[in-house]
Amino acid sequence: MQRSVKIRGLGLAMFGVVGAFAVQSGLAADKPSKAEMEVDYRQSLYTVIGGNFGPLGAMAGGKVPFDAAEARLRAERVAFLAPMLKEAFPADSNGVAHTAAKPEIWTDTAGFNQALQLLIDRSAALAAATNGGDAAKIKAAIGETGKACKGCHDKYRVKE
Amino acid sequence: MQRSVKIRGLGLAMFGVVGAFAVQSGLAADKPSKAEMEVDYRQSLYTVIGGNFGPLGAMAGGKVPFDAAEARLRAERVAFLAPMLKEAFPADSNGVAHTAAKPEIWTDTAGFNQALQLLIDRSAALAAATNGGDAAKIKAAIGETGKACKGCHDKYRVKE
Repeated sequence: MQRSVKIRGLGLAMFGVVGAFAVQSGLAADKPSKAEMEVDYRQSLYTVIGGNFGPLGAMAGGKVPFDAAEARLRAERVAFLAPMLKEAFPADSNGVAHTAAKPEIWTDTAGFNQALQLLIDRSAALAAATNGGDAAKIKAAIGETGKACKGCHDKYRVKE
Repeated sequence: MQRSVKIRGLGLAMFGVVGAFAVQSGLAADKPSKAEMEVDYRQSLYTVIGGNFGPLGAMAGGKVPFDAAEARLRAERVAFLAPMLKEAFPADSNGVAHTAAKPEIWTDTAGFNQALQLLIDRSAALAAATNGGDAAKIKAAIGETGKACKGCHDKYRVKE
């Protein structure tokens, strides 16, 4: 597995800084560039989504017992977070050293947006299913959401 | 600024894996340990919170014009994400190489929980304020939320 640089304390660095667009690439050797911070934000968002989807995948795959309350909590988080990805691919983050995002994201915008929208729609459907409490339906919806993740990764993410 | 290792593709690695507690420390040299993944999840959560608080801080500080809709969107995200921090400090993530989390988090649990709850409460109050649309009140609530961030960082986070 490849590893990339994560900027510790980025959250604080972004406090009133990125918002003000005060961070510029190459400002100082030890400061992350705006594009690096954008990639770190994007990867962090995926990590938080993945961290909450993980327990859902484990339930759907029978690795842990199904827990309706846990499924609901996790599904609501994924459904809340997935739409945030729409802002997470600014053009200047294309090609930044430690990104795994393929350039096709920015050249095949329509295809990428469609793949992302599928995740958004399916995670919303999953969250809705968890309110119903039917384990079989919830597991099926987890599977569909997982396929949306994988479909996009296969096409638009550099393989590990 | 110090940098630490971020594991690219952690989101996928956690799919059905962390949930099943199948990842063990030292399983393979190139695979992150469970504790490393926990730290990465925690730091990612802070990065996403910080990335959304940044524009709020910039508005409160007058670095960018006040935008009520933007303030509401960002504040609702921070209020949604802040409570997720309650799960982000498992005991085995104490002392992991690239963490900035001080051991006091786990020795002074009451103090840390109180500091974290302050963030949760203030970010909820901020989100509520953004529904009112009063810029002065919203800016004040942003300031109070920022103080909750800083108060906890000053006490429980290693200085950069």
